[in-house]
This record gives sequence, structure tokens and C-alpha cells, in this order.
Amino acid sequence: MTVQETIRTMAANAKKAARMMASLSTNAKNQALTRMAETLIARKEFIQQENEKDLAAGRQKGLSAAMLDRLALSDKVMAAMGEGLREVAALPDPVGEISEMSRRPSGIVVGRMRIPLGVIGMIYESRPNVTVDAAALCLKAGNAILLRGGSEAIHSNLALAKVLQESLASQQIDAAAIQVIPTTEREAVNVMLGLEEYLDLIIPRGGESLIRFVAENSRIPVLKHYKGVCHVFVDQDADITMATNIVMNGKTQRPGVCNALETLLVHREIASGFLPVVAGELIRAGVEIRGCPRTKALLPEVKAAAEDDWGREFLDLILAVKVVDDLDEAMDHIALHGSQHTEAIVTNNYKNSQRFLREVDASAVMVNASTRFSDGGQFGLGAEIGISTTKLHAYGPMGLKELTCKKFIVYGDGQIRS
Amino acid sequence: MTVQETIRTMAANAKKAARMMASLSTNAKNQALTRMAETLIARKEFIQQENEKDLAAGRQKGLSAAMLDRLALSDKVMAAMGEGLREVAALPDPVGEISEMSRRPSGIVVGRMRIPLGVIGMIYESRPNVTVDAAALCLKAGNAILLRGGSEAIHSNLALAKVLQESLASQQIDAAAIQVIPTTEREAVNVMLGLEEYLDLIIPRGGESLIRFVAENSRIPVLKHYKGVCHVFVDQDADITMATNIVMNGKTQRPGVCNALETLLVHREIASGFLPVVAGELIRAGVEIRGCPRTKALLPEVKAAAEDDWGREFLDLILAVKVVDDLDEAMDHIALHGSQHTEAIVTNNYKNSQRFLREVDASAVMVNASTRFSDGGQFGLGAEIGISTTKLHAYGPMGLKELTCKKFIVYGDGQIRS
Repeated sequence: MTVQETIRTMAANAKKAARMMASLSTNAKNQALTRMAETLIARKEFIQQENEKDLAAGRQKGLSAAMLDRLALSDKVMAAMGEGLREVAALPDPVGEISEMSRRPSGIVVGRMRIPLGVIGMIYESRPNVTVDAAALCLKAGNAILLRGGSEAIHSNLALAKVLQESLASQQIDAAAIQVIPTTEREAVNVMLGLEEYLDLIIPRGGESLIRFVAENSRIPVLKHYKGVCHVFVDQDADITMATNIVMNGKTQRPGVCNALETLLVHREIASGFLPVVAGELIRAGVEIRGCPRTKALLPEVKAAAEDDWGREFLDLILAVKVVDDLDEAMDHIALHGSQHTEAIVTNNYKNSQRFLREVDASAVMVNASTRFSDGGQFGLGAEIGISTTKLHAYGPMGLKELTCKKFIVYGDGQIRS
Repeated sequence: MTVQETIRTMAANAKKAARMMASLSTNAKNQALTRMAETLIARKEFIQQENEKDLAAGRQKGLSAAMLDRLALSDKVMAAMGEGLREVAALPDPVGEISEMSRRPSGIVVGRMRIPLGVIGMIYESRPNVTVDAAALCLKAGNAILLRGGSEAIHSNLALAKVLQESLASQQIDAAAIQVIPTTEREAVNVMLGLEEYLDLIIPRGGESLIRFVAENSRIPVLKHYKGVCHVFVDQDADITMATNIVMNGKTQRPGVCNALETLLVHREIASGFLPVVAGELIRAGVEIRGCPRTKALLPEVKAAAEDDWGREFLDLILAVKVVDDLDEAMDHIALHGSQHTEAIVTNNYKNSQRFLREVDASAVMVNASTRFSDGGQFGLGAEIGISTTKLHAYGPMGLKELTCKKFIVYGDGQIRS
């Protein structure tokens, strides 16, 4: 079979499986997830042998230590995957929830029932644990999933899929509900993106170039985020200690992630009191500051920000800092340079807190909290399949509910329309 | 300016306007809608003059009487548009609604706030009243809208846009919130579909070929439905009178619309009692029946259904009829031939009603009611901007809420992540 035929057949089988998945009971899904957790441990040796093939190939190709670390299915990573499966089993089942029921003037009773989306296509790089995490969430939400991982993790991903499929089969669930595409050819991604008759949603996870490629070539709806350029605006009457803590946490706790802080905006009235304090802490923590002219006037030792430092995702210990006249200038700056990911204000002014919450367009808008909280787990979604910074269907961290939708249901007793 | 430049500038202006629209008060939006209703009437003569240019051109081009009728802005249509504007003003404002607030273990309080989508692109054919209806719903939901109507209605659409913009300006609202593209060149659609930096959503309304073109060429998310192939399944223990009424209403009340009935599925145990009754009524109403072999065995006078009559959208007084063994065969037929629009069962069996509601994948699933109820107004959405038969973001009739989304909001008092 050609790559095209192979993937088309897999997708068609996934679509068939999706019909069965949609009507599985919560118990059956939870038992399958628990069984997967058990089988992962029971088959650890096999999985780690296959993982070793990827690691050996990676070493040969000269992958960095960090890349190899992301690839490795150590005992710790294996245990975390098992734990993740049990956590998903413990989450409430979103499918079947009925809401908004009301009787209409015609006499029909109309409401909405939550249902699975169908077949999810997942395109991702590197970390093989995504295979298990994504499969677990899709299964719990009653979907089938077709996974396409990075070529450097192909043996690991196929081994994990094999074990997950064994678990499904042992529970009389169609194994086609979880499939990993077995070829590493790049063409596979293009084929997937054209299968709109079988796939209902594509979720890409990886670098910006992968995500752009998927978004530009897909005929299937895509949930995506390109980057996280998060701002904190320290308002005129902010608490300086609180603001310092929030800036330090946002910038230094884990600088390489999408909800880390990239640009600090400071009200001019608080700048001379606040900037020296926060700059001292930042510099002690090894952060490079790139300031606007007014920032440099207060902190002559820092580097000048270049025009393209505004709106830049450093993912590193670098922070752009700008002094602004007021809330409006801060919000204008965010509207121009933000990435609709996460934006925060630090303020004790009630009116400004409300305006910021209402008027800033981002998937998460915060008052007096660190941008690092922008996360499915922290927001109470239980687990996260990704983040969306476009507004259709989902905006922000996506959990189980975002892998479902609602249909209308109607109870009548013979009504016809006049 | 080229077509490309013109449309890009309009879209950029719409995006600027969208930021203002998002923070308009409910009162300001309602006053603008009321003002539009008044201005439409005050400027009726101008609008009808411009409409006459389209009608004259249409007559010259040899448009059918039905097409000319759809195009005409008669006094009655003008009054209905004004009434529609007042109805939208009376609907609750979805923007700003806060839900799901809860305190997380970290101490932050997280919830969701409903916000507008931004800029909606609407691509439609024929009826110029869509210009007003769509603009009203988008405005109420806090969005800007860029409209591209059919070339045969260009003078009417531009006249309506002019009047709507005058109303906006009189209320100090940026007139760029409602714009009609002034060129009839086909290229305009392609240009719109590529402006993903400015447009958040495309809604096409028209024939299947227009919608397919938009879906296949858009880089912006599209909410669409291609067609409505609605089935009614008459179960073994259905009430024969109720089933007959529901079939007659679905097929004959308005055969040319997407929620009309196209295929009747009949349980074999009720077929001999039910089919002669319903066939008599259908034939008296001028409906052509196309039956499967088992149907023809009971109704020898009817035409045989061809293979491509299953899943066909007749939009006419034609009904495909098939006898099935049981509920499972009916649901298999619907899964294979349905269009995920509206599906109904007529039954007195509790278990079968619940299975049908749960297991049938369609945007609206009904028990003992006519498929003709599948409509935003009938479902209580107030007004309808279209119907979606794909599952992302919206599934089924779309009202004001479907022109919005939710962002996460966080209230903290200095929390940082550990």
C-alpha cells in the first residue's frame, strides 16, 4: 500500500471505531484507562527496548542532550504516564451531559447533549509521552485518535500504541480507536490534513513552523497556538512586593514555556519606585533586561530594547521592559504585540482591574496573579490536550470538554410546525 | 486601489472597529439597532430605488420570477427587516456573561467571560435582507462584519450598508463595524478567504457549490452546512396518526428548505399498517414516492428508488422510502447517508427513543417531532445566523452565542506558581 492508502485506511477505521467509542459507558472507558496503566507497567521492558532504538538513532544523529532527555522513556516517565492514565480515569465523563432543557411555545422540549467530536488527528514532535496523554484524553471524551509523532520517536510511539491497543482489545474495544501512523515520511502529514471526510479536528503540538505548516495546509479544523507572548502591566497603585513576585515568577520559574512572561509594562507613576526593585531581583536571577528609553533613564545599566523585542517570545532569561503613560497605553501595546495567550495586570485599582479583564483580548486575562497559572491543571480542567489562541471552539487551555461538542435534542409528543 | 488593497483596507478597518465594538455597552448596541430600524424606514425610497437597479439588471439577465422575488425589497420585506432589527435589540446581550467561577487550590479564582469573536466575514447569495439580519446579529454580539453579497444584489446591499453605517455614525459607533464589499469581481472572495490576520470567522450562505468553494479555499475557520438530508424513522410501535402527521409536515410544509424531510425509514413490523396510510396522504399532496423493494411490495404503484436516492437532498415533493429490519438498521442507514443536520424517530418505545437520541450523530436529534423544528427561532435562540453541520465551535442552528466565545479570567491576590 502507498502511504496515502495506508493512512486513508487507518482514518476510515478510526471513523468506524469512533461510532463505537461515542456510545461506550463511562465504566467501560475508565476500565480501559486503568487497564492501559497496568499494561504499560507490565510491558515496560518491551517499551524501553523500543525506546532504546530511538535513543541510539538519536545519539548517532547527534541530537542534543536536552532532545535525548525529552525522548527517553525512563522509569520515571513511564510511571508518570501510568499515573496520568489513572488521573484521566478519575475525571468526570463529559459525554452525555444534558443542559439548557426548556419547553418552547410549540410544546417541544429542547436542550443540548454533550457528544464526542469523532476522530481527532494529533500531529506532534519529540516527547513520546504525548502519545499516551493524548490517547487517554481522547478516549475519555469518547473520540478515536490518529497520532502522527516525530520521526525520531517512531519506535517508542509504535510500541506505546501497540500496548494501548492490546489494552483496548482486552476490554472488547475496537483497537482502531488509538492508532499511530507507522511511517516517518513527511508526506504522511499532508495526507492526514486532506482527510476531511474522516477526521473532525487536527491538534498540532510542536514548534511554530510545524504549527504554521499544519494551519496553512489543513482542510480540517485546527486548534492551535503559535506562541505565548505574555505581558504583565504594573499599574500606578500596584503593591510593589506583589508586582515583583509576579514578575519574578513569570520570568524565572520556567522561562522556556508559553505562559512565561516576555514583556513587562510599567505605569510611569510607579516606575521610579518599582523598576529599581524588580531590576535588582531580575539581574540577580540572571535575567537580561531590554528597556525602552524611559526604562533606561531609570536603569542606565540595562540594554536598550530593539523594535522587534516588543512582541517577541524569548523563551529565555530575557525580559523586555516598557514604561507606559497609563492603562490605555498598556492595553494598546498588548493589542498590538500580544499573542492572545495570557495577559496580567497588577493593580489595587478596582476600575482598572475590571477594564483590563473586560477589554484585553487574550485567552486568559488575570488580575494580581502570575501568568504561569495559565494551564489546564491550574484552571481545574483536570488535564490539558493543548492551548488554543484562536477563538473558534476553544480559547485557552483545552481539557476534556474541548474534545466534545453539543448537539440539540428534542422531546416532542407529535408536534408539527405550522 | 486594486481589489486586493480595497478589501485588505476594509478588513483592517473592521479589525480596528471590532476592538471598540467589544466594549460597547448593551444600551449603546440596542440604541444603534433601534436607530437602524428607524433609518431603514426613513430611507426606504433611496433603498428601493437602488434595489430597482438590481431588479432591472436581473430582468435583463433573464432571472427567474422566483429569483427576482428573492431579490426584491418590497415594503413587506423592508418592514420585516425593521422588525428583525427590533427583535435583535430585544434579545439578551451575550457579551460579558461570567460563568464557572471557582476557587482553585492555589487560591486563584478562575472563571470564563463571554466575549465577541472579533470580525466575521459573511459570503452569501441573492437575498439582500441577509445584509441587515447578519449585521444586526454580529453587532449585538459585539463583532464587526465584512459582507460580500451576490453580484445581482450589489446596489441593494450597498444601499443597505450605507443606511446602516449612517445609523452607526449617528450613535458615535465606528461605521467600519458594518461594511459591504463594493466590487462584484469574483476575486474578492479569494482575497477575503486569505485575510486570516483580520478575520476570525467566515460564514458562507448559499448553494452547495459556493459553500464548498469557501470551505476548500479558506485559511480562516468556516462555519457551514452543505445540505440537509433529514430522515424520519417510524419505529415498530409508533402511533400511526402521529407518524403520518410528522412525515407530512416534514415533507410538504416547505419542501425547499434544509430541515425538510428527504427519506422515510419504516420498521418492517409497522410497514404494512403504516405505509398505505401515509402513502395515500403523500400522493394526495402531490409527493412522488421512491421506494425500496419492500416498500414497492406494499405499494406497487410507486417508483423504485435508485441507489443515489438514499442520502439525496431533493428539496422538492419527492420522498425516498425504505423498510428496515429494526432500529439498528435505521441508525446504520442514517450514519451512512445522513448529513448531520436533523434526524427524528417516531416511537412509543422508551428504550429506543433514548438510544436514538444518544447514538445518532446529527446537530439535532428528535423524538416524536417534525424535523421542521430544527431552526434557531423554534429552538429559542432568538434569531439564526446560519446552521452548522460540522462540530467545531457550533453544531446546529447558530444564534447570538455562537458569534461569541469565552476567555478565562483570573482573580488573584498575588499568587505565584510554585
